[in-house]
Formats: sequence, structure tokens, C-alpha cells
Amino acid sequence: MGYGTVGSGVVEVIENHKRVITKRTDGDMLEVSHILDLRDFPGDSHEALFTKDFNDILNDDEVKVVAETMGGINPAYDFTMKLIKAGKSVVTSNKELVAQKGLELLNAARENGVNYLFEASVGGGIPIIRPMDQCLAANNIEGIAGILNGTTNFILTKMIEEDMSFASALKLAQANGYAEKDPTADIEGFDACRKVCILASLAFGKHVYPNQVETEGITSITLEDVAYIASVHGVIKLLGQISYISENEIAAFVSPAVVFHPSQLASVNGVFNAILVRGDAVGDVCFYGPGAGKLPTASAVVADMVDAAKHTQRRKIFGWGEGSESYVVDHKEVIISQFYVRARADEGEIKRIFGDVKFLNRYGKPAGEVAFITDKMNEYTLEKKLEGVNVINTIRITNY
Amino acid sequence: MGYGTVGSGVVEVIENHKRVITKRTDGDMLEVSHILDLRDFPGDSHEALFTKDFNDILNDDEVKVVAETMGGINPAYDFTMKLIKAGKSVVTSNKELVAQKGLELLNAARENGVNYLFEASVGGGIPIIRPMDQCLAANNIEGIAGILNGTTNFILTKMIEEDMSFASALKLAQANGYAEKDPTADIEGFDACRKVCILASLAFGKHVYPNQVETEGITSITLEDVAYIASVHGVIKLLGQISYISENEIAAFVSPAVVFHPSQLASVNGVFNAILVRGDAVGDVCFYGPGAGKLPTASAVVADMVDAAKHTQRRKIFGWGEGSESYVVDHKEVIISQFYVRARADEGEIKRIFGDVKFLNRYGKPAGEVAFITDKMNEYTLEKKLEGVNVINTIRITNY
Repeated sequence: MGYGTVGSGVVEVIENHKRVITKRTDGDMLEVSHILDLRDFPGDSHEALFTKDFNDILNDDEVKVVAETMGGINPAYDFTMKLIKAGKSVVTSNKELVAQKGLELLNAARENGVNYLFEASVGGGIPIIRPMDQCLAANNIEGIAGILNGTTNFILTKMIEEDMSFASALKLAQANGYAEKDPTADIEGFDACRKVCILASLAFGKHVYPNQVETEGITSITLEDVAYIASVHGVIKLLGQISYISENEIAAFVSPAVVFHPSQLASVNGVFNAILVRGDAVGDVCFYGPGAGKLPTASAVVADMVDAAKHTQRRKIFGWGEGSESYVVDHKEVIISQFYVRARADEGEIKRIFGDVKFLNRYGKPAGEVAFITDKMNEYTLEKKLEGVNVINTIRITNY
Repeated sequence: MGYGTVGSGVVEVIENHKRVITKRTDGDMLEVSHILDLRDFPGDSHEALFTKDFNDILNDDEVKVVAETMGGINPAYDFTMKLIKAGKSVVTSNKELVAQKGLELLNAARENGVNYLFEASVGGGIPIIRPMDQCLAANNIEGIAGILNGTTNFILTKMIEEDMSFASALKLAQANGYAEKDPTADIEGFDACRKVCILASLAFGKHVYPNQVETEGITSITLEDVAYIASVHGVIKLLGQISYISENEIAAFVSPAVVFHPSQLASVNGVFNAILVRGDAVGDVCFYGPGAGKLPTASAVVADMVDAAKHTQRRKIFGWGEGSESYVVDHKEVIISQFYVRARADEGEIKRIFGDVKFLNRYGKPAGEVAFITDKMNEYTLEKKLEGVNVINTIRITNY
């Protein structure tokens, strides 16, 4: 359902991998029987399979597994719910839908004895849902940090490595097809926020909704910040961060963050994604790969379709329960970290407030500007200390 | 079985993760009932569980899952085979045994309706076996490259980042407990070789034995090589590399290799491991984490134990068939790549042979020494071209 970039990739991957798919399913084939899209695709070699009527799929008893690659909540939600209730497994790349309605759809899948799988909704082609499930089996997960949006990572990489302005880097991303004409969902962090919701729900067992995850994008990042942070072997990344606080409390937020080398996250460049999982026994493991793109994302959708075709009974591993309004706590209160601060001030003023902090330098630093790294504290303490200081920008330094 | 570093970690992880384990097994507990070791551990809090008699485990009908963390072929092979034939699932961290006898043991497990799982045998705590299985479901795997040995990666990192000699770095690794008193298996590449066998068997469906994998360690690497390669933003890593050639042919070898930034493998430092899998649809995905160590490896063993406890019927996904003597072909013939060459020669001589190659420089380069990067060719062509040249070292430049 949905013959856009990912959907057409799904058909392509199924057709080009008949041999491996058949091997995985012990001889059963995946055959594409219908393609739902309201648009026309004249001349497409699958023209005979197209339909504009969802009921053609819903009412076809031969259809056991459906891929939903439409995006958005409606009508994807209605369609998915109807299919699940009709006893069909659904596989999706639709992060918005999983983040917003995942709990309902997973519950419906459980009640109807089918699967609702969503590996492609986080990290594109990177296997992350099942590896995380495996980490969970013998670890208490302490936290997760991820570069979850390729568009913003591409823009930041261009700013860091080629001294390109935010505006120019965004234009280049659009010219390369990495960013939409309206780039809001990417650059304001909304896309990363949805993926944080899915990862948090899966890792800690309670649904997290997008409106619970405080989200800040990258539009305030300047080349001056990039230069100061480069001087101490750091880079600015848009990170989704999730921390376990207690059985009934987590922190989850999206914001620009300073990452120092040699963190594995610091060397993730361009449109790539990476997800770092910190377990109490295993330590840090990191999963890296293409976070978007036609064939990578389609290959994750098809792997889920194969899994659904193999396991006609419901898979038990992917599910979570209802959280509460107070489940996601205020990260500004509970997360203790260092901060990067840039301000119009003199070093003496800063030292009086923050003590003997590390001041940073950059080529062309004007008189009367300071940049420095604070000790560890929570964000409210930082804000309080900075009252009365002419602050230009502050960025959290990640603990990953 | 085996209460060494990993085995004692297994007991610790089980005891410290009762809550998550019980959640995963839908309420069943993992209870440690026996610990087999020939040594005495006076004062150990599990003293009551120790036995020196394997039959205590074999003949206990309550035992359903056994962890084998003894290492070596014998008696681990006999014990494992007997347990499988007695209808018990076995989970292992023993790469030597899986590389040498994996096919037999997997076949026996299939015949006896139990599981033989080995996630901990490759990449320590990094989930790699199941993620690779998932990549396989909708991709043709084109190749795999891995930093599979933490000891050698620690030594190379010290040489690269701190200009430490091989001998000093090895001593430091031994002092830190990263290298054995007899470091042969690590520095000669034998440990990496076993992991290559397991990854190749899993990825391409036919057993690869250690004697089929040409293996070269890191003892020939000098600080001079490190410096030349650093001048072009490269690093030397000990890589296990596997390439798909055809349904009946692969290449598989272990050797030092030049990796250029920004390859994800170039930024894997210290005792960490990383495994890069290249699929035709997904592109490059990379799995990173602690490749060894007590609790990381133990957590992978325990995750497999949980999986075996959950799935009392045999899991179908992990298996392969018999290969043939000609299955692993000569990589020097089939793998085309660039090479780094260092020689006592002058640039004119090299240009006459190799054309307009890129010459490298280093601080303190003596007159009469050259280092350069060739065009792409196979290794036999390189050797032929270098006949009559006073070569000091050659290192393959990886295609990953």
C-alpha cells in the first residue's frame, strides 16, 4: 500500500531476491498480488496489479501479509487496523503511525493472532529492532542515543567538514533528494522524535508518544559553534537520547548535542544513521547503516514480510504496554551533563560564575565573545547560572 | 561448563538479570543447577553447585540448556555432542569449536530437535548472528569485513595513535589482560580466522574450515608503515574479509589491511570489534561493540540461553551445509584491490613499473625508500610487478 519511493522498492526487492526469500521461507514464495495507490503509473511493468480500492486487498483471502509504505496517520491507520482485524499481518516503514498508534495496532495484532512489524520505521535498512530485543534478553538497558535522521546529519556533516552554512547545506540536501521541499519534519527534529518514541517504547516496555518527547532541531546551529567544538575534537550531531530512570520513569528527548571523538557516534557522517545501545552487561553496542533510501528501507520491509510469512502465528517479542502522562520526565531536571556555552561576555565574568572552566577558541573569534565547556549539571542549574549572561547558544554535551 | 572468565560471567549475568530474563521467557526462570570445572573455587558463593563430573549434567533430566564456555576442541566437542544427543540445547562462546565442528554439531542438533546457538563466538557481546540472518532475508550478501580480534586492534591502535612500537604495545596489552602470556592465537590472526569461518558459513550456507582461510597476522607491521598510511588518512587494521564469488565459490582471508576514513571500520579503536556486512539492497551496515570481556560475552551467552529456553523446539535459522575443498578460492587471484607498497627503490623505477602512482611521505623518510599506492589489481599481478624490486612490505587496501 503506497507505491512511492519505499513501496516501489519493496516490489523491486521482492522480485530481485526470489532465491533468498524462498530459502528463508522454506520454499514458500512472496508474490505481489496487489499494489494500492491512488495515482496512475502508466507503463509500469506491474500495471496489472494496481488498484485504487483498498477493499481489493482487504477482501482477498489469499493475501496474508501486507506492506504499508504510505506514510502519515490517515488512511494508513484505518487500513492497517482493518487488515489486522481481517487476520492479515501488516509490515510498515511508517514511523509516524507506529509512534502515534503503535500500541493500539500491536494490541489489535495480538488479539487477532497476527503480526505488526516495523523494523523499517527506525534506522531504515539497519537491523535494530531485533538486535535490541536480543540485548534486552540479558541486559538492563541504561540508555540509547541515536543519529536517527539522515537529512540533518548530512547538513551537519557539510557544515563540519566543508564549512558550508546551514542554508547552503540544506539547499544541497534538497538538490540531492535528501531533503523535502518543505524540510520542517527533518530540520525541526520531528522525524527523529518519532523514532525516539518507537525505540523508547520497545526498550522500556511502555508507549511513548511524540508529544511527550521534547524536540529541538538544528536551525540554531552556526558555523561558529561548529568551529569552537571542532577545536576540542568534538562534532555537533542531532541526537535522540533515551535514559532509564526507574521502572516508571524515563527521559527521552531530541536535541543537538556535542559528541566527542572517539565515540562511535562522532564518526557517523552524511546521510547515515547510527543507534548506540548501552546495556549494564554488554556496555555500548552500536548499529550503523543507511537510515533511509529506497532499497535499504525496502529491504527492511521485505525482511519483515518474510518473517511474517514464516511465522503465521503471532511473534511475541514486539510489544509494549500503556505508559502514563508522567512516564517521560523532564530531562532538563534529571539528565546531568556538561554543556557547551557561547556568550558575549568576558572570561572573568564566566570564571566568577562557573569556576575554572575550559575556554575554547576559533579562527576569527571576536573580542568580547567566549565559548566554554561547563562541569556536569542539569539544564535548570545551567539556566540559572546563565541568568544575566548574554548567551548566544548552549548545546548539551552527550554522555554517549 | 567452564568457570573461567566468560563462564563465571554467565552465572553473574543470570543472577543479576532475573527480572528481564523472566520477562523474556514468559515467566520461566533460568536457574543455574550445575557448574562444571576441574578446578576448585574455595569460598565461591556457588560452591554447592560445582561438579567435576560431566555426567552430573548429562544425566540430570531437569537440565534443558547448557552453556559451554570451556574453549578448545576437547573435551568441549564430546561434551556438547553428548548433551545434544541427550536432548539438551547447548549455547557456546567457543569459536574454535564452532569453526572446526559447527556443521556436525548443528546437524546433530537438528536431528535431536534441540538448539546449538553461538552468538557469543563472534564479536563477543555484539549481536551479529541474528542481525546478519535478518540482512540475509532480503539481500544478496556481497561481502563481509570485520575487525574480529580486540587484542590486535588494541595493539594497532596504540601504534597508530601513540607511536608505540609493536613490542611495547603487545606488552601493554598483556599487562592490561587483553593478551595472553602466549599471544600467538591473537597476533598471528588465528582467533580472527575462526570467526571468519563462522561468519562465512552462516552468510553463504556452507561450512568453511580454518585451514581453508589464509591467515596473516600483524607481526610484520611497523611504525613506518603506520606513518606512511596516516599521511593519506588511512589506518592499518587486521581484517577478516569474505567475498561472494558465486553459488559455489567464496573468498575468505585474514590479513592486515589499509582502511581509509571515513569507512566505519577506520574509527574502531582499542579492544572494540566491528563487523561490516554489504548487501545488494541495504548497502553497508556495521555492528560495533565490545568483542570480548567477561560480562559482554557472558551477556551474549545468556541471551542465547534465554532464546533456547523460550524455543523448546529447534530454531530453523542457524544452519549450513557441507562445502568442498574448492569452495574457498584463492583470494590472491580473485580479489582486485589497490595495494600499499614500501620498498628500497627510487621513484623512477616504480613509475616505470606501475605508471603514475601516488607516492607517500613520512617524517624521517630516508633517501632510497619509497612508499606508494598502486592501481587496482590482483595480488599475483602485484607480485609479478614487484619481482626484482627490493620490497620491505606490502599491505592490501580493503574495498570496505
